Amino acid sequence: MSSTPVLDRVSGPADLKALNDAELGRLAHEVRAEVIQVVSETGGHLGSSLGVVELTVGIHAVFNTPTDKLIWDVGHQCYPHKILTGRRERMRSLRQGGGVSGFTKRSESEYDPFGAAHSSTSISAALGFAMAREMGQPVGDTIAVIGDGAITAGMAYEAMNHAGHLGKRLFVILNDNDMSIAPPVGALSKYLNEIAAKGPLSLLKAAAEEFEAHLPGPMRDGARRARQLVTGMPGGGTLFEELGFSYIGPIDGHDMGQVLATLRAARARATGPVLIHAVTVKGKGFAPAESAADKYHGVSKFNPLTGEQAKSKSNAPAYTTVFGNALTDEAARDPRVVAITAAMPSGTGLDIMARRFASRVFDVGIAEQHGVTFAAGMAAAGLRPVCAIYSTFLQRGYDQIVHDVALQNLPVRFAIDRAGLVGQDGATHAGAFDIAFLANLPNFTVMAAGDEAELVHMVATAIAHDSGPIAFRYPRGEGVGLELPERGVPLPLGKGRVLREGTDAAILSYGAHLSEALAAAESLQDEGISVTVADARFAKPLDTALIDQLIAHHGALVTLETGAVGGFGALVLHHLANSGGLERGRAIRTLTLPDRFIDQSSPAQMYEWAGLTAKDIARSVRQALGRDVAKGGLRVV
Amino acid sequence: MSSTPVLDRVSGPADLKALNDAELGRLAHEVRAEVIQVVSETGGHLGSSLGVVELTVGIHAVFNTPTDKLIWDVGHQCYPHKILTGRRERMRSLRQGGGVSGFTKRSESEYDPFGAAHSSTSISAALGFAMAREMGQPVGDTIAVIGDGAITAGMAYEAMNHAGHLGKRLFVILNDNDMSIAPPVGALSKYLNEIAAKGPLSLLKAAAEEFEAHLPGPMRDGARRARQLVTGMPGGGTLFEELGFSYIGPIDGHDMGQVLATLRAARARATGPVLIHAVTVKGKGFAPAESAADKYHGVSKFNPLTGEQAKSKSNAPAYTTVFGNALTDEAARDPRVVAITAAMPSGTGLDIMARRFASRVFDVGIAEQHGVTFAAGMAAAGLRPVCAIYSTFLQRGYDQIVHDVALQNLPVRFAIDRAGLVGQDGATHAGAFDIAFLANLPNFTVMAAGDEAELVHMVATAIAHDSGPIAFRYPRGEGVGLELPERGVPLPLGKGRVLREGTDAAILSYGAHLSEALAAAESLQDEGISVTVADARFAKPLDTALIDQLIAHHGALVTLETGAVGGFGALVLHHLANSGGLERGRAIRTLTLPDRFIDQSSPAQMYEWAGLTAKDIARSVRQALGRDVAKGGLRVV
Repeated sequence: MSSTPVLDRVSGPADLKALNDAELGRLAHEVRAEVIQVVSETGGHLGSSLGVVELTVGIHAVFNTPTDKLIWDVGHQCYPHKILTGRRERMRSLRQGGGVSGFTKRSESEYDPFGAAHSSTSISAALGFAMAREMGQPVGDTIAVIGDGAITAGMAYEAMNHAGHLGKRLFVILNDNDMSIAPPVGALSKYLNEIAAKGPLSLLKAAAEEFEAHLPGPMRDGARRARQLVTGMPGGGTLFEELGFSYIGPIDGHDMGQVLATLRAARARATGPVLIHAVTVKGKGFAPAESAADKYHGVSKFNPLTGEQAKSKSNAPAYTTVFGNALTDEAARDPRVVAITAAMPSGTGLDIMARRFASRVFDVGIAEQHGVTFAAGMAAAGLRPVCAIYSTFLQRGYDQIVHDVALQNLPVRFAIDRAGLVGQDGATHAGAFDIAFLANLPNFTVMAAGDEAELVHMVATAIAHDSGPIAFRYPRGEGVGLELPERGVPLPLGKGRVLREGTDAAILSYGAHLSEALAAAESLQDEGISVTVADARFAKPLDTALIDQLIAHHGALVTLETGAVGGFGALVLHHLANSGGLERGRAIRTLTLPDRFIDQSSPAQMYEWAGLTAKDIARSVRQALGRDVAKGGLRVV
Repeated sequence: MSSTPVLDRVSGPADLKALNDAELGRLAHEVRAEVIQVVSETGGHLGSSLGVVELTVGIHAVFNTPTDKLIWDVGHQCYPHKILTGRRERMRSLRQGGGVSGFTKRSESEYDPFGAAHSSTSISAALGFAMAREMGQPVGDTIAVIGDGAITAGMAYEAMNHAGHLGKRLFVILNDNDMSIAPPVGALSKYLNEIAAKGPLSLLKAAAEEFEAHLPGPMRDGARRARQLVTGMPGGGTLFEELGFSYIGPIDGHDMGQVLATLRAARARATGPVLIHAVTVKGKGFAPAESAADKYHGVSKFNPLTGEQAKSKSNAPAYTTVFGNALTDEAARDPRVVAITAAMPSGTGLDIMARRFASRVFDVGIAEQHGVTFAAGMAAAGLRPVCAIYSTFLQRGYDQIVHDVALQNLPVRFAIDRAGLVGQDGATHAGAFDIAFLANLPNFTVMAAGDEAELVHMVATAIAHDSGPIAFRYPRGEGVGLELPERGVPLPLGKGRVLREGTDAAILSYGAHLSEALAAAESLQDEGISVTVADARFAKPLDTALIDQLIAHHGALVTLETGAVGGFGALVLHHLANSGGLERGRAIRTLTLPDRFIDQSSPAQMYEWAGLTAKDIARSVRQALGRDVAKGGLRVV
C-alpha cells in the first residue's frame, strides 16, 4: 500500500477541494515526507520547503489557483507547491539539466504566475496583478508569501507602502521562521519576535472586527482581547497597520486548523491589503534539519533517516574559501579593513573573517542598496571596506555603485563571487552582467581572477588600492589546484600576463576560464596551430600595450570572458577601433555569454550550451584563422 | 549699511558659536533673504532650500562640522549650507559651468563629507561614518537630513533597520514638509501627518526621558504627556522606534528656539540612533513659493519681488511633452495601457496622461525597485505598462529589470527620459549608462529616438510590442522642430534608416545626436568629403544588414551615441568582429561619452567637454579616413 494515499489522489489543486480538514492535515504530512524523500535524492532547498508545507496545502485548499495568483518570494520554498501543482512526477529532476527548476518559473507551470529567485519581489508583483484585476484583467485574488528575512529588504517595504496607499484587496503571508539563511539581521526581526510573543492571535484595528466573526471561538476571544488593548491608542497598531495593512496574527503556521481558519476568514472578508503573520519552523518535521536549520537551507543529497549529507570530492579549495582566507590575512595586517555582506556571511566566505574579527564584519541583511552606500560612507571616513556580494545580487546595488561609489571615486572594494554560470541555481543566479556594468564606470578598476592564486593577489591589490573603487570577480566552485601564495602581492594596475607563447593566433582571456583557454591552445597545438594565451587580469584599465602587441604579432585575436556582451571584449574592440588597430584587418572574435538566459544544469553543461568550452574556443581560433575545416574534413563553423 | 549684518560676520560654521540665540534667529532671516536673491539670479532649487534655513543654522550652531559629518539627502536643499560654509561668494555661479554644484559634493568642500543628488542615500552614508568613528576614525557625530519623500524609499528603510540594529549614536533629521516634488505618496505620509497632528512635541519611550530634562519647560510638559499616553502599550511607539530609533518630535522646523533646544538636547544625551522629526514648509518665507511649492522646486531666474519666472524661448516642444502626448493618444486607443512613475509625474510628462486617465497612471513614490516589478506584475496579468523613469534613476531598478522583466520576457515598456548629458544638474543626473545596461540583456528590444517625430513612432512601437520588454530613450530639452506625425506608427523592429547618402564615410547615429551627425556631414561636404548618415534606431536587435552595407560601401564607419562605452558602438563592433566584418580592415571609430564624469554646465558646453559635438564627429570622420589635416593645414587630431 502506498505511504501517500491522500497525495496519490491529488493531481492538482482542484483535488484539494474534495478533502475535509482532517484529510488536508494528512495530505500535509504526506507532502512533507515526499519533500524529504525527493530532496534526499536530488539535493536542494530543504529547510524552507519543509517550513511551508501547511501553508502551501492551506492556500491551495482555500484559494483558487491558478485564477488566484500565488507568488512565492525567492521561490526556493516551492517544492510542496510544485508537488501539488502537477509536477510531482518530475521532482526527481529538480535543479538538473532539462529538469524542474529550483525556483518558481512562469514557463514551467500556469501555477507559477511570477517567477522568483532573488529576494523580496513578491509583494510588488502581487500588487501588479491585483491592480490588473481592478482594471478588468482575468485575475482572482493575489497572495504573496514572503519570509521574515526577505521582508526586511527595502523593496518589500516600498511595495507595502504602495499597497497600503492603494488599499485594494491583496494578501501577504509573512512566513516568519526567524531564520532566513543566516539568523536575520536588524531591528525588524526583534519587532517581529515581540509581536509573536504577545499571544496566539492578535487582531488589531477596528476594521478588522469583520474577520473575527469567522474565526473559531478561542481564537476569536484572543483576537478581541488583543485588539481592545490597543484600539484608539496613539501610535497603536503594528508596523504593518501603520503602512495601511490589516494585520492578522501571529498564527502557528504548522497548525492546519489555524492556517485554514485564518485563510478562510481572510478570504471571506478582506476588502483591502491584509498581512497574515504565520510563525513557522524551518526544516519542520525533519529532526536533523530542525536542529540545524542553516545547514539544511541548501543541501546536497542526504540519507533521509540520518540526514547525513553526501560529500562531494574536493580537489582544490573553493574560490570562496580562498577569498575568505586571503581577506582575513589582509585584515590581520591592516585594522582599517572591514567587510560587508548582505545576509550571506557563509556563502561569501566572510564567516572566515568573522571568526577572527567579528566586529569588523557587517551583515546588513538583505539590503544590497544600503550595504553599498554604507561601505561608501566607511570609505569616505578612512576605512578600507570590502563589499562581498555575489555578481547577480550586486545588480541590486547598481545605482549606489554609480552614484555613491564611482562618482565620488571612493575606495570601496567589491569582491564578486559567483561570476559566470553557477549550475543548479540556473539563470536567475548567473553572474553575467557585472563586467559590463562595472567596467564602463569612470574611476573604477575592474579585475577578474584567472585562477585561485591570482585571487589571493587580487585581494591584496584591492586592499592596497586606496585611490578609487576596485572590483574583482571569481567563479563558483573549486580552483584549478594551484599552490597558493603565502601572501598576496599587489599586482601592477592594468597589466596582464602571457602564459603561453605562440605565433598563429592569440587568446586573451579575462577571468577563470583561463584554464579553458589553455586547454584550447593545447588542442590546437596538436593540429599545428600555435597559440599565445594571455590573461588580461584587468578589464579596466586595459592593458593596451599587450593588446596592441597581440594584434601586431598574430593573425587572429580571440577574447574570452564568462560574461555578457558589452564587457571585456567590447572594451578591447573599442580600444582597437579608436586607436586605429582595426585597420590591420586582423580577424577578431569576442567570446561572451550568448544573448539568452541559460537554464540550470551542471556548470560544465551550461558552458557547453553557452558555447564557451575549450572546444568552442578552439573552433573560434580556427575560424578566425580561416582554418575552419577540422582535421576530419568536416566543416565545424 | 548691509542688509545682512550678521551673515557678513560669518565666514564659516565656527563663527556661529559666537552668536547668541537671537542672533542665530536673525542669521536665519538673512540667509533666507540671501537664498532668494541668489536663486532669483541663477535659478535652482528654491523651495527645498528655503524650507531648511533654520535647520541649517541650528545644526551648524550646535554641532561641530566638519569633524561632525552633516549629510544632506538628495542635496538640493543645500544652498543655506553652502552659504554658511565658505561658499557664499561663489553662489552666483550656482549650477553653471565651472561654478558651484547644485548638490553637495565632496570635491567642493570639506563641509560636504558625502555628496548626493539621487534620493535616500544619506542614512546609509551617515551610518558608515558613525561605524568608522566607532572603529577609531577621526569622525565626530553624524547627522543625516532627509525629506519625508526620500525617507519612503526602500533604501532609507534598510539603513534605519540596520542603524537600529547596531544601536550606535547617529542623528537622523526628518525634514517633513509633506511635499517632496509632487505630493508624497504612500501610507507613510498619512502616518507622518497623524503623528504631526498629535501635538507640538511628543517624546515617546522611557529611554527618551533623558532628553526631556534638556528641553525648555513648555515643551518638556508636552513631551511627558505624549510619552505617557503610549508608554507600555502593546504596539505603542512610532514606526521609527519600532526600527530601534529614539524619536523626538514633531517640532516646528522654522522655530529657531525649538530647533536649537531640540538639537542641543539630542546632542547632549543621545546614546543610540535618534530621529528628530521637524515639520517645515517648502518655500518658507517667500510668498510666491509657499503658495505654489511644487512650482518653486526647481526654478529658472525670477523676479525676487513678484516671483515671476523668466520664460525660456521655446522653439520646439520638449521631448517630455511629445512623449506625454503620444502616450496619452495610445492610452486613448488601448485601455490596457497603464503608466508608472516614481514620484515624477510632471518631470516625465505622465501628468498629461493623468489629466485624461487618472486611474491608469500609478505614482509609486520614490521606489524605482518596486515600480519596475509592479509593472512586471501588471504585464504578466495582461496589461501594457509603461515605466517612465529618467535614465539615471532607472539604475535603481536595474536588478528588477534583469530578474523580473528580462528573465521572464515580460512586455514592460521603459520610457527613458533625460538620456545623455542633462545640463545644470550635472554628472549625478547624466543618463550615461542605460544603453549599455539594457542592450546586453536577453529578450530586450532597445531603441533611441533620433528626433521628436521618431519618439512618437517609438511610443507606438513600444505599445504594439507585446512579446517582450522594450525601451526607448530620448534627451532632456527640445526637439529639432520637426512636424509631429498625427499618429505614431510602429517601426519595423531592428531596422534603421538612411538619412543622407554619401560615398566616403558613414556615420551611424543612435539617438538624438542625429542632428549633430547631420551637421558634421554637412560641414564635411564643404571639405569635399561625402558622408552617409544613418539612424540606427535600434541598439537591439541591431540592423546588421545596414551595418554590413555601410562597412562594405564606405572607407570608414563612425558610430555615435550619447552614452558610455559598452553600449551601441560596442554591439556594432561585436557584430562585425564575430561575422568577420573587421577583416576588411576598415577604419571604425566608436564615439561615446568619455571615461570620466562631466560636471554641470549647459548641455552644449558639456557635450563640447565630452567631445561629442558636430565638430568632434567631423574630426573623427576625417581621422578615420586618414585626412586628419584640416583645410588650413593645422593638425586637429
